[in-house]
Amino acid sequence: MTKKGRVFSGARPTGRQHLGNYLGAIKNYVAMQDDYDCVYCIVDVHALTTMDTTMELRTNTYDMALDWLAAGIRPEESIVFIQSHVPQVMELHTYLSMVTPLGKLTDLPTFKEKVRQNPNNVNYGLVGYPVLMAADIVLYKADYVPVGIDQAPHLEFTRECVRSFNYRYNCKALIEPQMKATEFPKVLGIDGVQKMGKSLNNHIELASTPEETAKRVMTMVTDPQRLRRTDPGNPDVCNVFSLHKMFTSAEDLANINVECRRAGIGCVDCKKKLAANLNSHFEPFRARRAELDQKPDHIWEILDDGAIRARKIAEATMVEVREAIGLP
Amino acid sequence: MTKKGRVFSGARPTGRQHLGNYLGAIKNYVAMQDDYDCVYCIVDVHALTTMDTTMELRTNTYDMALDWLAAGIRPEESIVFIQSHVPQVMELHTYLSMVTPLGKLTDLPTFKEKVRQNPNNVNYGLVGYPVLMAADIVLYKADYVPVGIDQAPHLEFTRECVRSFNYRYNCKALIEPQMKATEFPKVLGIDGVQKMGKSLNNHIELASTPEETAKRVMTMVTDPQRLRRTDPGNPDVCNVFSLHKMFTSAEDLANINVECRRAGIGCVDCKKKLAANLNSHFEPFRARRAELDQKPDHIWEILDDGAIRARKIAEATMVEVREAIGLP
Ligand code: SF4
Ligand code: SF4
Repeated sequence: MTKKGRVFSGARPTGRQHLGNYLGAIKNYVAMQDDYDCVYCIVDVHALTTMDTTMELRTNTYDMALDWLAAGIRPEESIVFIQSHVPQVMELHTYLSMVTPLGKLTDLPTFKEKVRQNPNNVNYGLVGYPVLMAADIVLYKADYVPVGIDQAPHLEFTRECVRSFNYRYNCKALIEPQMKATEFPKVLGIDGVQKMGKSLNNHIELASTPEETAKRVMTMVTDPQRLRRTDPGNPDVCNVFSLHKMFTSAEDLANINVECRRAGIGCVDCKKKLAANLNSHFEPFRARRAELDQKPDHIWEILDDGAIRARKIAEATMVEVREAIGLP
Repeated sequence: MTKKGRVFSGARPTGRQHLGNYLGAIKNYVAMQDDYDCVYCIVDVHALTTMDTTMELRTNTYDMALDWLAAGIRPEESIVFIQSHVPQVMELHTYLSMVTPLGKLTDLPTFKEKVRQNPNNVNYGLVGYPVLMAADIVLYKADYVPVGIDQAPHLEFTRECVRSFNYRYNCKALIEPQMKATEFPKVLGIDGVQKMGKSLNNHIELASTPEETAKRVMTMVTDPQRLRRTDPGNPDVCNVFSLHKMFTSAEDLANINVECRRAGIGCVDCKKKLAANLNSHFEPFRARRAELDQKPDHIWEILDDGAIRARKIAEATMVEVREAIGLP
């Protein structure tokens, strides 16, 4: 089957994945495989730019890979690998840094935001974050990068990098990636306020047991105005309902939407339904995950194999890049 | 024979070498081989940070390597190679950049000077210059780096990089290089005012023919106060005399020193002596160079072989570095 081109996407090794990761990335990763040649990268080098400790880098990488594979990423088809296993990305990063004005990097809103978050750790590597990201994408000659609308400036930076390089060395060695506009649903945590995230401990892990999942769901904040069982609720402001939208049948969803508003259903029952639906949705995932987890070596082999395939593409690009620069 | 440790030094590929390069670096490179394991690197990646054109990168690399080898660098013994042929240096550069505060780089006097020189080309790579230099040195676990007193801060930066890395990752993977204090004679150009350099076209190339050499020497500026043959001169302010110090016998030197001051020798004769001494000094060099230049492939093979040996050391260091960071 002819595919429509190559997609690249990278994610930091954050360990066991949660519903936010699933709805925001993994589901899309799995789906894109049908139409594109996919390159999915666990970006451990990026992680170093802001990491306090690297103690959990290995287990986090393993756990994330396990979740990806259990969720349906097909390593025979897609390239799944660890960024640092393809050192060519750091080579290209260095060459791209020669055509990237410093001011352009320090002026980026995302850099300013990171300085605000890590005022005591503004390292040289952090400034170059977008350059390394550009290197990731163009090293694999990706045609498309799935980005949300708020990420568009970052991809535009990559495209400018490509143009600067090709212009500087009068070549066509690098390819400008296209934006594959993607909707990333904003998934809130169980607090119903903040974005779901591991660091806030407001997340629900895909690999939790059914009991743990139910327990987390039962603590979810619902419509804050609905104080008593007899108060009518408003699903439009309830995060439980937002998740129902993703995991509950249209019929049941319509029913909750009506019953909640007239206090026909209580939040406890509503949450039980959600927990049940989550658990049945992730049952096959959990089974596959448990099976895969029996053979950790196999996971590392898959990542090694991905790195071999990634390095092949990367080295071919670098041959062109070195030639274009005119390196001896 | 047991040597006293490993020395690393790098030089930009500037093409055919001149007397300034010879007296400032090559002579020392040759001499250090007797006492140290030497790693000599043609730093083409560094060259990219400020280069307007890379058109001559290949020929400049070839010409410099040719001069080095003809001057007595022994490739069976020392490792002579091209920086970009060991991409591990860019990998290490990326990892070191994670432990290097941006402010430390932009505060360096050498950076400020470069910004002054290239106000329109302050690229991200230029800022990272000292980090890449640190990577060069520590990648090969160099014990010593020959540096002039004015270069000491640069080496101190490398040492700080090593300490930051080892501290950050609680390891001893990297070695702090020691300064091998070296006197670099300041060689002035034929204008007698500016430092000898290709870009100023005030240089005398080692590989020039005897006739070209004599021609260049004859145009040298001497004691500016000595206008007529009958005026006494002052060798202390004469660049011709400075070069005599390097290439003329003690006896002849003493004689010129006396005769010049009482107008016993004219500048034309004095220069003829210098030209003759230069030509006889570089006669064996030129013969070897011409011979080597018969087989350009052999020069590239020497550099390839150097890269293979360099990569072996580099990869061993990187295995430790990746392990120390905790990369998966
Ligand atoms: S019934 Fe369901 S949708 Fe309505 S407020 Fe409670 S949890 Fe939310
Ligand atoms: S005689 Fe020689 S040393 Fe004296 S001024 Fe002339 S060139 Fe210089």
